[in-house]
Amino acid sequence: MKRLLNETDQILNESLLGFSAAHNEIVSYNPEPRFIFRKGGATKGKVSLISGGGSGHEPLHAGFVGKGMLDAACPGEVFTSPTPDQMQSAAKIVDGGAGILYIVKNYSGDVMNFEIASEMLEQPNKTILTNDDVAVEDSSFTTGRRGVAGTLIVEKVVGAAAEKGLDLNICHAIGVKVNSQTRSMGVALTSCTVPAVGKPTFEISENEIEMGIGIHGEPGRKRVALAPADSIAKEMTEAILDDLKPARGSQVLLFINGFGGTPSMELYLMYNSVAKILGEQGVTIGRSLVGNYVTSLEMNGCSITLTTLDEEISGYWDAPVHTASLRWKC
Amino acid sequence: MKRLLNETDQILNESLLGFSAAHNEIVSYNPEPRFIFRKGGATKGKVSLISGGGSGHEPLHAGFVGKGMLDAACPGEVFTSPTPDQMQSAAKIVDGGAGILYIVKNYSGDVMNFEIASEMLEQPNKTILTNDDVAVEDSSFTTGRRGVAGTLIVEKVVGAAAEKGLDLNICHAIGVKVNSQTRSMGVALTSCTVPAVGKPTFEISENEIEMGIGIHGEPGRKRVALAPADSIAKEMTEAILDDLKPARGSQVLLFINGFGGTPSMELYLMYNSVAKILGEQGVTIGRSLVGNYVTSLEMNGCSITLTTLDEEISGYWDAPVHTASLRWKC
Repeated sequence: MKRLLNETDQILNESLLGFSAAHNEIVSYNPEPRFIFRKGGATKGKVSLISGGGSGHEPLHAGFVGKGMLDAACPGEVFTSPTPDQMQSAAKIVDGGAGILYIVKNYSGDVMNFEIASEMLEQPNKTILTNDDVAVEDSSFTTGRRGVAGTLIVEKVVGAAAEKGLDLNICHAIGVKVNSQTRSMGVALTSCTVPAVGKPTFEISENEIEMGIGIHGEPGRKRVALAPADSIAKEMTEAILDDLKPARGSQVLLFINGFGGTPSMELYLMYNSVAKILGEQGVTIGRSLVGNYVTSLEMNGCSITLTTLDEEISGYWDAPVHTASLRWKC
Repeated sequence: MKRLLNETDQILNESLLGFSAAHNEIVSYNPEPRFIFRKGGATKGKVSLISGGGSGHEPLHAGFVGKGMLDAACPGEVFTSPTPDQMQSAAKIVDGGAGILYIVKNYSGDVMNFEIASEMLEQPNKTILTNDDVAVEDSSFTTGRRGVAGTLIVEKVVGAAAEKGLDLNICHAIGVKVNSQTRSMGVALTSCTVPAVGKPTFEISENEIEMGIGIHGEPGRKRVALAPADSIAKEMTEAILDDLKPARGSQVLLFINGFGGTPSMELYLMYNSVAKILGEQGVTIGRSLVGNYVTSLEMNGCSITLTTLDEEISGYWDAPVHTASLRWKC
């Protein structure tokens, strides 16, 4: 394993020191217990959005802390859930008096730790579970579907609703709605290597890909032979469309997400492949996002996410955002 | 070689189709001869900025076409110079009547092709050559230093000056100035693989890194043993500082650039390492940029770029920009 690091057990801390210094006009870093929060702390009268999860998926979640998205992000060790003390300390700092809304990817460890945090919290609070991955129904880490790249879309949409001053119940309802209209599926060409483990999470040959890969390198639907991009895109997009069932003529947000080691050129090539398929199905692309946003360290591969759009969701998507990794109209 | 592609000779076209569709509010694509240009074409009365070079470095340059940066980008095949007909056709489309300014990375092929384009052009035109790489003085592809990640900074600064309505000579002078205040150096942990070649550009063992790597995977200063991030950062930063010689107390822009296959976590860890060294040297970080912006396909590694700042350059850096890959205040 070749990595740009000093001591393995210091990667996360040193990386967050760098992150918070590079973006010190947007965020601050609390090292113990560990969380990233908006510079200046709480926004009075606003519902406070807190997310978190294992590290290794950057820029998710810390890269989405800032105006228009999250108030705080609680990173666990690589691919390991954060602990409730992180969420509780973060909630104290960012509490604007309108309640706390947790956004949690559906993995057993995350769900448990955020549940404990929720129970310990005195403030009114609610939780949105994201579960957009159509690849597998249950897994060793989940009951039900996994939360993957669609989590970014939920964080953006709910972040805009909270910024507008909507109350806790309404923000929660909007989050549940956008999650229910969002589906994803991934494919891996290579494995990732967890620094503390030092060897690839899985073995895969030079001619194989893992269809339906999870964002921790956990198994997907099947191991198949490498195929042309168009046919990989077709299989993934059809799996998503079969489940999402958008009406002919409906508008979607198309998000092509790289897992960290995929060249930009290939992500846009995949965008082109998926766009052709959507066109054939009479589905219109209303909004687009392409890039390495919900990663698995240095894994090569990508996921496709579709969200069906309506005026409400498009409006929140377009609303100003000023974070380290998503920024517009600010 | 595992890649998300259909036919190797269609990668570039399919990728640019995807790119221009995903960002169709910002750019348009002319497939023959090939270039990306601002949606709507020329901006009347404004100096027109055209860049280009071999593909495989995305988002450079097409990702920086838009308000506040480039007017057009001419991509060659992977790691291959574009041809003069591309620059000439692009110049016709984006000519705003105030002259054409070419921004060219210092590689013999690019220099020659842009020179021919310049000679063929009837409009007044000038060229800025970027040559920020301190690693090697001459190479098989260059006379003098290579132009690498600092090119992004030149494009941003000159783009803002042109947007402000400054004339061709002044925009050219600002570009020459910011290039002269910019230095970079890179390190590679793995090679990249050119799709049409199908095997890694160079061999490198599990315990080695290439110090001073070029953005095409061409040799740097030396092949050395993998070392802690702090010591890699120290060697690179000192090489840059020895050459740039910023005064104690001066302000710099620090840009940590990933080569395409480097996890975000490690780029921020490197930022932290470099920030410590700059602090010891009495150099203040006034602006920051961290991410995969000037890549070498899927190469794992990074470069460090420093630009000494003054009020003029900071002002142009902060000015509004609306491109696919850099966006603020728009």
